[in-house]
Amino acid sequence: MYKYLDGIKGPQDIKTLSIDELKVLAYEIRHFLVDSVSKTGGHMASNLGVVELTIALHYVFDSPKDHMIWDVSHQSYVHKLLTGRKSEFSSLRQLGGLSGFTKRSESEHDKFDTGHSSTSISAGLGIAMARDLKHETYDVVSIIGDGAMTGGMAFEAMNHLGHSAVNLKLILNDNEMSISENVGGLSRALNRLRTNQTYFSLKGITKGKLSKVPSVGDPMVRFISRLKGGLKYYLVKNGQFFEDLGITYIGPVDGHDLEALIAHLKMIQKTKEPVLLHVLTQKGKGYAFAEQHPNRYHGVGRFDSAKVIEAVEKEDYSKVFGDTLVELATHNSKIVAISAAMIEGTGLSNFRRLFPKRIFDVGISEQHAVTLGAGMATQGVKPYIAIYSTFFQRAYDQIIHDVCIQNLPVVFCIDRAGIVGNDGETHHGIFDISYLNAIPNLKILSPKDGNELRNMLTYSAQYFEGPIAIRYPRGMANFSTPVSSEGWEPEVMMTGEKIAVIATGKMSLIALEASQRVASEIGFSPTVIHVPQIKPMAHDLLESLVAGHKYIITVEDHTVIGGFGDAVLRGLSGKINNALTYRIGYKDEFIEQGDVSDLLRFHGLDAEGIAKQIKEVLNG
Amino acid sequence: MYKYLDGIKGPQDIKTLSIDELKVLAYEIRHFLVDSVSKTGGHMASNLGVVELTIALHYVFDSPKDHMIWDVSHQSYVHKLLTGRKSEFSSLRQLGGLSGFTKRSESEHDKFDTGHSSTSISAGLGIAMARDLKHETYDVVSIIGDGAMTGGMAFEAMNHLGHSAVNLKLILNDNEMSISENVGGLSRALNRLRTNQTYFSLKGITKGKLSKVPSVGDPMVRFISRLKGGLKYYLVKNGQFFEDLGITYIGPVDGHDLEALIAHLKMIQKTKEPVLLHVLTQKGKGYAFAEQHPNRYHGVGRFDSAKVIEAVEKEDYSKVFGDTLVELATHNSKIVAISAAMIEGTGLSNFRRLFPKRIFDVGISEQHAVTLGAGMATQGVKPYIAIYSTFFQRAYDQIIHDVCIQNLPVVFCIDRAGIVGNDGETHHGIFDISYLNAIPNLKILSPKDGNELRNMLTYSAQYFEGPIAIRYPRGMANFSTPVSSEGWEPEVMMTGEKIAVIATGKMSLIALEASQRVASEIGFSPTVIHVPQIKPMAHDLLESLVAGHKYIITVEDHTVIGGFGDAVLRGLSGKINNALTYRIGYKDEFIEQGDVSDLLRFHGLDAEGIAKQIKEVLNG
Repeated sequence: MYKYLDGIKGPQDIKTLSIDELKVLAYEIRHFLVDSVSKTGGHMASNLGVVELTIALHYVFDSPKDHMIWDVSHQSYVHKLLTGRKSEFSSLRQLGGLSGFTKRSESEHDKFDTGHSSTSISAGLGIAMARDLKHETYDVVSIIGDGAMTGGMAFEAMNHLGHSAVNLKLILNDNEMSISENVGGLSRALNRLRTNQTYFSLKGITKGKLSKVPSVGDPMVRFISRLKGGLKYYLVKNGQFFEDLGITYIGPVDGHDLEALIAHLKMIQKTKEPVLLHVLTQKGKGYAFAEQHPNRYHGVGRFDSAKVIEAVEKEDYSKVFGDTLVELATHNSKIVAISAAMIEGTGLSNFRRLFPKRIFDVGISEQHAVTLGAGMATQGVKPYIAIYSTFFQRAYDQIIHDVCIQNLPVVFCIDRAGIVGNDGETHHGIFDISYLNAIPNLKILSPKDGNELRNMLTYSAQYFEGPIAIRYPRGMANFSTPVSSEGWEPEVMMTGEKIAVIATGKMSLIALEASQRVASEIGFSPTVIHVPQIKPMAHDLLESLVAGHKYIITVEDHTVIGGFGDAVLRGLSGKINNALTYRIGYKDEFIEQGDVSDLLRFHGLDAEGIAKQIKEVLNG
Repeated sequence: MYKYLDGIKGPQDIKTLSIDELKVLAYEIRHFLVDSVSKTGGHMASNLGVVELTIALHYVFDSPKDHMIWDVSHQSYVHKLLTGRKSEFSSLRQLGGLSGFTKRSESEHDKFDTGHSSTSISAGLGIAMARDLKHETYDVVSIIGDGAMTGGMAFEAMNHLGHSAVNLKLILNDNEMSISENVGGLSRALNRLRTNQTYFSLKGITKGKLSKVPSVGDPMVRFISRLKGGLKYYLVKNGQFFEDLGITYIGPVDGHDLEALIAHLKMIQKTKEPVLLHVLTQKGKGYAFAEQHPNRYHGVGRFDSAKVIEAVEKEDYSKVFGDTLVELATHNSKIVAISAAMIEGTGLSNFRRLFPKRIFDVGISEQHAVTLGAGMATQGVKPYIAIYSTFFQRAYDQIIHDVCIQNLPVVFCIDRAGIVGNDGETHHGIFDISYLNAIPNLKILSPKDGNELRNMLTYSAQYFEGPIAIRYPRGMANFSTPVSSEGWEPEVMMTGEKIAVIATGKMSLIALEASQRVASEIGFSPTVIHVPQIKPMAHDLLESLVAGHKYIITVEDHTVIGGFGDAVLRGLSGKINNALTYRIGYKDEFIEQGDVSDLLRFHGLDAEGIAKQIKEVLNG
């Protein structure tokens, strides 16, 4: 029971509260979040950091008339709480439940679906321009983190915004860290802003008053020696970076001071030109443990709020990747790692500790990450670029244009390939085979288990004929299966007859299990073949392996459109004319959120579902 | 016969020339370029603009030891001339000839293959970091235009560069225009730099001397009132935008003053930290006509250098698109157009003239263009986003994440789909079906001629159920064929037997011609079917149309991997078991440069080549 939170049915209910009551509301929200997210899993620290900011936004602006666009939107839980979705929080990120991101289909207060980083300024500008074309008058506010601002499309949008002079308000939610670590010159520039004297003087004078707008001559205009030789002096000026782009800069303001936030938001509310309010927040604010370990709790599974359990050392695919790369790098000084703000997520923490000069975290900049690796590869350095499948989409042109045309020996380590679970439709990695397979020169590998991933990484270190992409899933790796022989030719996992089941990646073991189940029911064993190398595919060998089989069934953790099944059957077309072919994978639709095991079952991709489909094919 | 140019076999040969001799060399190079490019076609104005800059770069730095990375690199002709490739200029951009871009395979002086915009800072940084890892000492210089700098990945790279403090030199080749028109806040910031007092004072003092490095107190530190209400004053400081990112800014310098250029390049040569030299150049410099019409001659076909012929008003696909969109917009105020620095190339000049408030040129920012359109579409505005197929690759994640997941009624107008000709492998649009077809919710159309493109655009204006992509080729449109009936069901263009030829887009008419040729030789007509809608595909209807045919042959101006053929045959698999299937399209390789007609013939995609393949299939 919460005195104020329980009474909030929509934003209008907070407008009647006093500042002191809003402060109690903020406390209640933190309590609720810690309690609820510890049960459901989800993003904790980032939401604890924006409690006051979200309250102030809904206090000053009028949602749903005014439009708020939350960048990435894993920090939108408070927004959801204030817009009538508290009762649904027990279903957060579960199959059929409340999304962990904003969704237009979920609420009239959610104005744009986000999930990937750095889209909110473009979307907000599009909405604001449409508003102006239609001669409407509401406000549009995009809330973006300092990490997300390093993404190139955020810059493209700010460049356009400054030029267009459209009335769009930006809130820079600056918590001094992106998911892994904030990097880059922008971060350094922001750091100067954070620590300048205006900020500290603001803290003293902002009790309910507008901060004094700095004018020329302020003590904050400092002189700093930059170049070591003393070649040049220059001025540090508040927010010049944004001003140069044509966006009025205001701030910074303490993101946990409700009165100051409300005063500053009212100020930007009056502005009719592009404006950015710089808000300093602290991830995990108010929750001591999360505050101390914000990174570990960026996205969390379920944990006990009373007794936080240390994460178990897991042998998931990311760890296999990270450990193997450390081993390889120990013996090969040419190996370097590149990450786009996902050092921990991709399993590279150890690598960073051991080889700090050979790892490059470029921030949320997937495009740059790929072309940076291409440049390195021209000099004989061997870059391993580790990016989640879904974020790798951002670098699609660079993969083609900068790596594959030049046939450079870059290794793409595509983590989280296939469905990823509770992050839902914006995060599943079910398109990478389709978009990569069409690219000439690229070799594509897909291991059936942890041992094979390890072997593929070892193989790739000695491979200099061109680029390689290795796709592997989220989750625990199996190590119980025998190691494949040399090379990546198709491997017969079970010899059988009539039915050939051809699978790749983690689906190979599931397809094997399904086929074993089916065998006991139908009285004979299907043939099960694992294909570790998707491209180039050994079609001739596959043809000989499936010769005489009447049914050919492909299995993949990926869309069937342009995926593994298409790749198998393209090479066999015209050669297996009497066989009936069938592709098992995701149908042509975006896949919802839910536990991976639930989703596999739901989409007929667990052993039971595959067995069922094999029998259906057999029975026509 | 050129006094100096003829003697230049490599960069070492210019280092012995005096400044006065270099000036004559510059004149000779301009003369040669105008003479040669007028015969071969190619980029004229951009190369005339960098004659002195390129000479100065090769005078100060030591290629190939030092690495120069030319962004986009259509301005690398002077570099090619100075590095021993003059005798090959008659083959420029022709099949088997000199590339219009830098190519590592072409010369040891070309350090990275470019073609798309904004990659040079990432590539240069990768090279410089690899150099440092290997404890080598050469210089790396990335030369990037002001237009290319608006691309998000250039910002990502500068952000990383400033943070990394790596010794990489940037040359900002600022000609005050990108391909169409330079837009954005960055442009405005640069404009302030161009016109500041330092520049004008520099012009007087730079005869062979270093410009005085500005220090605090310079008169260029000006006070400007920004906000109309006089809310705030701020300082304009030279190059603060770059300095904020951690990159030392030097300039601007007159890009046609050889002595000043050499002096400034020597200055940045000594710097060991990230540095940017701002160079002001003039596109088309020294060639009166090109100078007056730089945009028309950005990329040109062949023209007579003595008598320049006005471009003939052509009914190419881009014009059909532009004209039709103007018609539609006249009657529908919700229609807007979005372009990424390609207003003229995509046929939107008229639209801009007639509806200046309903067209948005975002600069070289394809990612932002797509998400901007998505934002607009949420408000009931109908955006037509016109981007070349090859550049559309840059926005792949935004197409999925911001448009298709939300199923927003955006229209993607994919110009230059298929092979484009002389720009070669970086520019052919042969991957779009593969990367788009896997995306749920997206409808994909591909017209057989100009009439059908017109009808599809008209159709799309009334279609609000989701996103549509319309892919159409470079080149002249045919209008002689009858208009299809309503809807976009497969159309039987010729009724025949035994062989079913299924094609899409411009290949449908070529496939028809091929089939007519074959018919007279084999004594019966194949069936020819045009498929205007690639996704969703009318597989059931197609199945009935091809029933009884023994050979099914698909034809597309696209890679066969994940392309149209795969899409046709996926739906027919298991239903046409007795048919032999065959896909005609590009094999799994990057396609070289050359005239479109030559390339089609070379790859067996002209009528003769298709006829030959049909007969081969028939003869087993």
